[in-house]
Amino acid sequence: MTEEQHITSVYDRDLEAIQAKIMKMGGLVEAAILDAAQSLETRDEELAEKVRVGDRAIDDLEEMINEDAARLIALRAPTAGDLRIVLSVMKISSNLERIGDYAKNMAKRTTILSQMSPIHGSQTALRRMAREVNEMLKDALDSYIQRDAGKAQAVINRDADVDQMYNALFREFLTFMMEDPRNITACMHLHFIAKNTERMGDHVTSIAEQVVYLVTGGTPEEGRPKGDKTSTDAAYSPQM
Amino acid sequence: MTEEQHITSVYDRDLEAIQAKIMKMGGLVEAAILDAAQSLETRDEELAEKVRVGDRAIDDLEEMINEDAARLIALRAPTAGDLRIVLSVMKISSNLERIGDYAKNMAKRTTILSQMSPIHGSQTALRRMAREVNEMLKDALDSYIQRDAGKAQAVINRDADVDQMYNALFREFLTFMMEDPRNITACMHLHFIAKNTERMGDHVTSIAEQVVYLVTGGTPEEGRPKGDKTSTDAAYSPQM
Repeated sequence: MTEEQHITSVYDRDLEAIQAKIMKMGGLVEAAILDAAQSLETRDEELAEKVRVGDRAIDDLEEMINEDAARLIALRAPTAGDLRIVLSVMKISSNLERIGDYAKNMAKRTTILSQMSPIHGSQTALRRMAREVNEMLKDALDSYIQRDAGKAQAVINRDADVDQMYNALFREFLTFMMEDPRNITACMHLHFIAKNTERMGDHVTSIAEQVVYLVTGGTPEEGRPKGDKTSTDAAYSPQM
Repeated sequence: MTEEQHITSVYDRDLEAIQAKIMKMGGLVEAAILDAAQSLETRDEELAEKVRVGDRAIDDLEEMINEDAARLIALRAPTAGDLRIVLSVMKISSNLERIGDYAKNMAKRTTILSQMSPIHGSQTALRRMAREVNEMLKDALDSYIQRDAGKAQAVINRDADVDQMYNALFREFLTFMMEDPRNITACMHLHFIAKNTERMGDHVTSIAEQVVYLVTGGTPEEGRPKGDKTSTDAAYSPQM
């Protein structure tokens, strides 16, 4: 075995160890999304508490990944291509951490919402949206491990569905609030949850974009579709 | 001049060039915050358009900084301490980019809000909040250049003020919506702007935390205060 091969294999082993942590982190975040959405729908405060407490483990993993990546760069002085992988690992872990934060925030709101009357099945719609984001995350992480740019691109395209679900919910919440002012507080919280779930989708998309960049060296096919039209769409003007 | 000194000075020059880009990016983001808040208060759609278009330059700078940093790591193989600086530069530019995005989003909503009746001086309160975030950002970037952990810690502590401003506005918006359902759509947008401004404050805090970490090698004095109580506070239960 030559000296160079030896160095490469140590580097690969280190990198694999970091990627294993990414996968572990991904698993925890996926569970957090599903648990948070379930706790919201079934008003399960114990499950919500589990999500809140569990976020600590996700944060700790991000910190470990950052430290490992920095150590790897310092010790192994990776080449440009390898460096790109290490830097992408850091970005992906940062995205995962943010998704975990949103799940925690959803779980926090479960406690307040449990004290209010439910809003016409919105919790069920939110859980459906969370499931979609969860599926996308699973696929994005698979595409990362398999270095599959096609699969990653498919995830990016699906983000538009999540945005559409959000837009529909936004409209619904406005209607519920106008119909009965007693719905306002609950709808404000539910709307936050919807927006945060939509943002989770953005972070999943960002992970998929990292994969495309890693594999092809370029940015994804077309600009990321910006599906939240509530900030510009005329349909949300006061006439509605 | 020894070989080692020579290498160090080339490294320093590269790093300074990246830091200059961070400062340029910081200046653009500061202007975007102030312009967005002003366009919202004075209903200046032209200024809002300027903010929306200008976000592109901020995004481009982030990309350049990331590329420069990756190149620096690959070419110069920095030591652990120097590597920490380069990685912090990447994190700070990512925070700045997010703040710029929020400013752009605020500017987008200006156009819709201009078509609605103004809500009891909320726009003025929002502008005050944006100014506070802008001041914090200025200080955070100064603390970075001066490597002043004390100044950075002061920025972290001020984030609680921004959170308090947000909490007060959230309460106000709920009241306005309950008083008159015709206020609901405008209040939803204004509430988003308030929340996004509060998130800008979080990103500024995150920059300041990077400075503390860079200078002291440790995390800030105490956990970052979590001032947004609207997700857990009983005052936001339906009784209010």
